[in-house]
Amino acid sequence: MSSLKVRDIGEQGLLKRLQSFCPADIIGDDAAVMQMSPGQSLVVTTDVLVDGVHFSDRTTSPSDVGWRAAAANLSDLAAMGATPLGITIGLGVTGDTAVSWVEQVYQGMTECLQQYNTVIAGGDVVRSPVITISITAFGEAFPHRIIRRSNAKVGDAIVVTGFHGASRAGLELLLHPELGKNLSEADRKSLIQAHQRPKPRLDILPTLWDILDYQSKIQNPKSKIELAGMDSSDGLADAVVQICKMSGVGGRIERSHIPIPQSLHNWISPEQAIKWALYGGEDFELVLCLPPEVAKILVKRLGNSAAIVGRITSDSDVRLVDAAGCYPEEVLSLIQGFQHF
Amino acid sequence: MSSLKVRDIGEQGLLKRLQSFCPADIIGDDAAVMQMSPGQSLVVTTDVLVDGVHFSDRTTSPSDVGWRAAAANLSDLAAMGATPLGITIGLGVTGDTAVSWVEQVYQGMTECLQQYNTVIAGGDVVRSPVITISITAFGEAFPHRIIRRSNAKVGDAIVVTGFHGASRAGLELLLHPELGKNLSEADRKSLIQAHQRPKPRLDILPTLWDILDYQSKIQNPKSKIELAGMDSSDGLADAVVQICKMSGVGGRIERSHIPIPQSLHNWISPEQAIKWALYGGEDFELVLCLPPEVAKILVKRLGNSAAIVGRITSDSDVRLVDAAGCYPEEVLSLIQGFQHF
Repeated sequence: MSSLKVRDIGEQGLLKRLQSFCPADIIGDDAAVMQMSPGQSLVVTTDVLVDGVHFSDRTTSPSDVGWRAAAANLSDLAAMGATPLGITIGLGVTGDTAVSWVEQVYQGMTECLQQYNTVIAGGDVVRSPVITISITAFGEAFPHRIIRRSNAKVGDAIVVTGFHGASRAGLELLLHPELGKNLSEADRKSLIQAHQRPKPRLDILPTLWDILDYQSKIQNPKSKIELAGMDSSDGLADAVVQICKMSGVGGRIERSHIPIPQSLHNWISPEQAIKWALYGGEDFELVLCLPPEVAKILVKRLGNSAAIVGRITSDSDVRLVDAAGCYPEEVLSLIQGFQHF
Repeated sequence: MSSLKVRDIGEQGLLKRLQSFCPADIIGDDAAVMQMSPGQSLVVTTDVLVDGVHFSDRTTSPSDVGWRAAAANLSDLAAMGATPLGITIGLGVTGDTAVSWVEQVYQGMTECLQQYNTVIAGGDVVRSPVITISITAFGEAFPHRIIRRSNAKVGDAIVVTGFHGASRAGLELLLHPELGKNLSEADRKSLIQAHQRPKPRLDILPTLWDILDYQSKIQNPKSKIELAGMDSSDGLADAVVQICKMSGVGGRIERSHIPIPQSLHNWISPEQAIKWALYGGEDFELVLCLPPEVAKILVKRLGNSAAIVGRITSDSDVRLVDAAGCYPEEVLSLIQGFQHF
């Protein structure tokens, strides 16, 4: 890594270098201008990451810090049913920060954004005693296709879009490389990749719209489907409990239906695997509540680990159940997340 | 001020209190959803403020910190010709931060936003070793009415929308209350107000559109007027030089035409007053380059200190000239701004 520090080139010098990561036609004015498609709603989300709190050099390279930051925000857009347009970045850096570190963070962000035809649309660079990265992502969504936490209805099937527990497993392998000796090199890499380069599930939206378009044609067009869901960034359990709480409903999740990476079974106990799947977090999958007939078609079309894991009920809580009767029923409670103070 | 600290209620507790500053129908999901008017472009700008670098308790109360932060971002939207829709706030706070301090910052932001029918649309609250406020403001603009720094043309008149130097004078009075003994209490208050509660000039946009609509009716509709301008947050001189640089043109500014608050003449020398007007910054007025006939009508309709201060030339620099011949010509150079590192 080059030894050039931020203080050597100053705020303006750094900003100039970082502008090479933005499309040339967007930058250089008081604000960025972007086109939206007609009839779509604007969707906006924001996240702040602080050095030592939300990322650390121990487990995460600068380009992975960038990728993960971008992915987390795009995942929030996916969770609303929105297609991303761009992000802005508010960066606070110390004079001691290596310029190449910052450029690698932006490189990682750009690599992630390019997968989803999205751009860095602008930003601000300031001096700060601690490195801080604030990202605001904005996208567009069809007003009648917005996915809300509060839309779940009794009878809905609960769908998850991919494996859970992989990110948590990858983190464990990064922190304790001596673990997981039973894992193949490919499995090890894949779990670490899940942690370092999570993929926001924007890819499923066109499939979902396609199914809903077809459903609205064959059904009474007045029976409008209101979509419920969120992403599983804080864990699968948290997502289901949040949706149920916001919708005033309950839920039942069948333990054996939760898609867990096969490789985990060669490494940890089934109890541990379920724990990581439910509470590990940062898998950035989507948890959707849909009419059962829509859910079935979606899971079939997505294949590859998408699954119906349970259903929305009129209960007042969310329960983890076991059809085989090996485990007692368990009430899932709202994970408060880390209390950072 | 209550002694309750952020660590007493935690990140989640603070977020819950701050949500009372957002419209209830916007919050509580993975992202905020907002409606845009048909056919308008999305305009986005972002700013980061760090405690001790961009604000300090010495000259600025928490509610003024909030007002100024919101105003600076709305001013960037005004400078693009955009009408604000909302802002998101990424807040980093220490455990020691007083909850009431944060609430007063949000109160100040809200007071400013309400003047312009704008809302806090969402945000994030995290732990940080230093208080950091990242604001992203987004708005909408007619694609053909976007005001760009690069659109100035030789022959354009340079218009400023209000007084310059008032914010710098107000700061001086706050830092050195023993100064300005000649000022009336009302003048003193008005200068301090200019520093603590600057007003983004969103109010002039409807007047400007109205004039342009009329012009395009009486003229050949094909002679499209491309608007040039930016705000004077970094000083009047900086704004003119930036516009000329981005447009590949030069400019001449007539010293006696720069609107300076009358009260400054009772306090400081004309040379000092011009210096504050040109380089003081943070007046958050607009500097526009317009065809002379449009500029004349705009200044007449705005009244109250709006003025044509000069014109765009084919020179390679921006000169401050004096028609009376008392001062020699002066070349204005690009103020690099404070080098923060």
